[in-house]
Amino acid sequence: MTNQIRLALAQINTTVGDLEGNTNKIMEYIRKAEDAGADIVLFPELTITGYFPEDLLLKKKFIEVNKLSLKKLAIQNQKILSIVGFVDEAPDKSKIYNAAAILQAGKVSGVCHKICLPNYGVFDEKRYFTSGTQPLVFDFQGIKFGLNICEDIWVPDGVAESQGMSGDAEIILSISASPYFKQKRKERLAIASKPAKFTRSIVAYLNLVGGQDELVFDGNSFVVDQRGEVMFECAQFDEQLLIADIDISQVRAFRKNDPDYTRNKSNYKSHYQPVFLSLPTLTKNTEKKEIQYVAPAIFSEYEEIYRALILGTRDYVRKNTFKKVVIGLSGGIDSALVAAIATEALGSENVIGVLMPSEITSTASNQDAIALADNLGIEYKIIAIKEPFNNYKKLLAEHFAGKPEDITEENLQARIRGNILMALSNKLGWMVLTTGNKSETSVGYCTLYGDMAGGFAVIKDVKKTTVYKICEMINQTAGKEIIPNEILTKPPTAELRPDQKDEDSLPPYDLLDAILEEFVEKDKTIGEIIALGYDEETVKKIANLVDINEYKRRQAAPGVKITGKAFGKDRRMPITNRFRI
Amino acid sequence: MTNQIRLALAQINTTVGDLEGNTNKIMEYIRKAEDAGADIVLFPELTITGYFPEDLLLKKKFIEVNKLSLKKLAIQNQKILSIVGFVDEAPDKSKIYNAAAILQAGKVSGVCHKICLPNYGVFDEKRYFTSGTQPLVFDFQGIKFGLNICEDIWVPDGVAESQGMSGDAEIILSISASPYFKQKRKERLAIASKPAKFTRSIVAYLNLVGGQDELVFDGNSFVVDQRGEVMFECAQFDEQLLIADIDISQVRAFRKNDPDYTRNKSNYKSHYQPVFLSLPTLTKNTEKKEIQYVAPAIFSEYEEIYRALILGTRDYVRKNTFKKVVIGLSGGIDSALVAAIATEALGSENVIGVLMPSEITSTASNQDAIALADNLGIEYKIIAIKEPFNNYKKLLAEHFAGKPEDITEENLQARIRGNILMALSNKLGWMVLTTGNKSETSVGYCTLYGDMAGGFAVIKDVKKTTVYKICEMINQTAGKEIIPNEILTKPPTAELRPDQKDEDSLPPYDLLDAILEEFVEKDKTIGEIIALGYDEETVKKIANLVDINEYKRRQAAPGVKITGKAFGKDRRMPITNRFRI
Repeated sequence: MTNQIRLALAQINTTVGDLEGNTNKIMEYIRKAEDAGADIVLFPELTITGYFPEDLLLKKKFIEVNKLSLKKLAIQNQKILSIVGFVDEAPDKSKIYNAAAILQAGKVSGVCHKICLPNYGVFDEKRYFTSGTQPLVFDFQGIKFGLNICEDIWVPDGVAESQGMSGDAEIILSISASPYFKQKRKERLAIASKPAKFTRSIVAYLNLVGGQDELVFDGNSFVVDQRGEVMFECAQFDEQLLIADIDISQVRAFRKNDPDYTRNKSNYKSHYQPVFLSLPTLTKNTEKKEIQYVAPAIFSEYEEIYRALILGTRDYVRKNTFKKVVIGLSGGIDSALVAAIATEALGSENVIGVLMPSEITSTASNQDAIALADNLGIEYKIIAIKEPFNNYKKLLAEHFAGKPEDITEENLQARIRGNILMALSNKLGWMVLTTGNKSETSVGYCTLYGDMAGGFAVIKDVKKTTVYKICEMINQTAGKEIIPNEILTKPPTAELRPDQKDEDSLPPYDLLDAILEEFVEKDKTIGEIIALGYDEETVKKIANLVDINEYKRRQAAPGVKITGKAFGKDRRMPITNRFRI
Repeated sequence: MTNQIRLALAQINTTVGDLEGNTNKIMEYIRKAEDAGADIVLFPELTITGYFPEDLLLKKKFIEVNKLSLKKLAIQNQKILSIVGFVDEAPDKSKIYNAAAILQAGKVSGVCHKICLPNYGVFDEKRYFTSGTQPLVFDFQGIKFGLNICEDIWVPDGVAESQGMSGDAEIILSISASPYFKQKRKERLAIASKPAKFTRSIVAYLNLVGGQDELVFDGNSFVVDQRGEVMFECAQFDEQLLIADIDISQVRAFRKNDPDYTRNKSNYKSHYQPVFLSLPTLTKNTEKKEIQYVAPAIFSEYEEIYRALILGTRDYVRKNTFKKVVIGLSGGIDSALVAAIATEALGSENVIGVLMPSEITSTASNQDAIALADNLGIEYKIIAIKEPFNNYKKLLAEHFAGKPEDITEENLQARIRGNILMALSNKLGWMVLTTGNKSETSVGYCTLYGDMAGGFAVIKDVKKTTVYKICEMINQTAGKEIIPNEILTKPPTAELRPDQKDEDSLPPYDLLDAILEEFVEKDKTIGEIIALGYDEETVKKIANLVDINEYKRRQAAPGVKITGKAFGKDRRMPITNRFRI
């Protein structure tokens, strides 16, 4: 019996639909893992197709090419054992499975199917996949391994426990594509530690990294030991090949000497029946160089969100083959943060700011926007909107006869700005980034086809109070003023009519954000929120605004999910909806 | 034993989230059914909540109020047996079910849970509901009834068969919310006839009617006999209380004398175990007036689609509490059809057309648009866009220096028009209807924030060739020119640059539509479509356009689904997607 095994966790960034590119990257990492003397290399869930392919899974040819890609990898994988995520298909082609293949010695030695299919939040896996029924345990180099996929380890008393208990797996390998939201690291460690401690096994948890439309996968893969303690951990938000040397004798000693484990095992009843697979021993790489493990930086709360926004933005822009982005700079805090994120994501040479002052825009706003652009080192343009605005007003005067100025004129200004940014986008090939935050997106304090116009809504899931926190963090971390202090300290305004302040129309942001957290993120009803002690009129007003603005959000650009419930696939509300309780 | 039963099929139009309004309407129809001497009245799936409530189902209070509404109905329902759709909850509140309640004598006498939960196409029921496990059969007035919900009757060899065979149900009641797409009537009749013939029972199939966001429920409920022949049928697209007098002796005679039935029954094995419920007999209304059944009109292919678009538009506008709509009239066929639909849906007094000519717009286009408005009897306005267009060009000149005119200037014109319509909308409270058809929505031959700007995209799922067919049908049916002949005969143009024709950029529409049908609606890949005999370059070009324009469609307004696969919830493609095979 061997006690030593070298695992390689290939935390890679795949691209949805890029079967060829993903396959090449997998091969590249298999070679790296071989070079590092690894015995086993793990890849994330649905490595070949990218996560999540959505309705591409309904195309027969997509499934076929994915299977051919796996075959190609299998043939080229001769030296080590590689575990790769792919879409498996029933022999009669009537069903597909979210699957992991075990590649060894030029062929596919085994396949396991995901048993627990998430179909909540942003997930729709039951739309496509059939559930597996039997957890897999395999024997390799004298060690027993359980292999499972993402949700399989999240469902309590389930697949992982059955592998450790009924299957006697000593190391549980879990490959996943677990999307980021704030503070998820703790949650994942707690989830993986539960079966580790209960079954006294080691859990190697590999997560995808990269952005895909609304989602950011933050990586942050890890290995925990039989006490649930972190042994190894990957960087968050970066590609990495982590080498984890594991001595299994600790697990074996624990199992022998721990009375809890013995009792738990004898009492254990599972409704799963694991299947066993015995894999041939590979000639061990005898000259393994020692590899030093360096623990990654753990980000602070707001730095972590900032990094998620950077990765999500970079990957959306780059994977959709854009090089440069353009942002309307108002001199306010939202566009300041978006510009800072874009600069960090794409480089200052790829970010263009556009100031579009109206007659209402204060000199201070322009100065603040310019100071920001200078601090970030980005190019900026100034295009005044007075002329088209007056022009539209003249054009519409006879049709608006007898009606006072109202939100129409405010929206017009926002839409002129949207048109200018889109014209620059069309002519020069830049992607427009929108700057609306979650607070205003929630209550519709934004203009459809105006400030909502653009390809990616970077801070769509970031509430206003969090926008401030991130900006403060940016300045603190930099040790200097990146976001000009004036922007951080002046009261928020849309500057669409003279002397306008956000608080003229909305409750103070700390109150607004607290109520939105209950209503949007926790799905509380109006009555339940009032019962928490909030003012009835305020709660009703906010809830009503959220509900009646669903039509606006339905036409919004995608943006990075950073909370437990974002708009988009995560929160599916009918537009036509009379529920107001 | 009784042989006679009077069923009432309450094909009603509910509103999502309007629990109070729906409950009142149910009560109103219970009274109507009582007055008509019915023994049983059926209501559609999820009657109380409306179909489909989506993430409202995640709100605890929503479930609670829905249960209270059911209780209220039960108390008020004293005379007949009423079957009402609602959301049931497990006693520990950990699960919810898509359910039907049997109301009798002031209380809830029984509840059945939907067993087969659709989670494909536009459906996400597994996101919310837990499956029922046992089909329900109940005994009432000496007749055995099976009761099931929508998908339960669609899954072959399933719930309905087990009710007829294992449960000996003589009448199978199926309540549903089955969305319209073209020619679905035939499909539904075939589906319902299968268990009717196999089990020699009568199937009463009740469908919802009305529009909800992207979906239209077309009603068209029916009763088929034990040979699968239609006995009764409701109107398509209208509310109706259908009275169906059924003599069960025919079923009984068939069962006695049909050797196929006897053999099928003795061979029948089901994995379902029906539960039985015996309901107290109600004092029969002895003085039943005879009610004459009148078969509804069956619509021709294009009239049916037209009626679906009318209902979908009316309900979206009205249920979202708008009164009037505004439409940009270009003199082309798409805006002509949308104006005709809106006029039919809302009345000519509630439709405003706006002509927004540029310097490129031909006199003929203006004349055609005015002729259309006159034919429809709608008000129209003329707002020329020359000035703002020149203004934008001047404003952008220095930033566009050295670049030729291109699609940017075309988009600018479309966006100016979008801004004008939205300004009218904001100032005067009219909903903007967009006029893009499915062919151009597919390939992105439309301007985001331009002609795509608006609240409802009426013909978003109608391909260009179908637009022509519907317009021809409208004129034929009217026996006069509603859509001016010039509009029907001139070549399509966006009129965004001089002498532009759609066919300069796109293949002829009959070819384009045929390829789109394969690629979008049937999920074929490029290779598979070329194998059907289409030109390789054309197919690749179209498929690529469809794929790279996903970002536009994601920001599109909702519109009525009329095909087997519409854009929106029905087709969920990633925006970031490199698959091009």
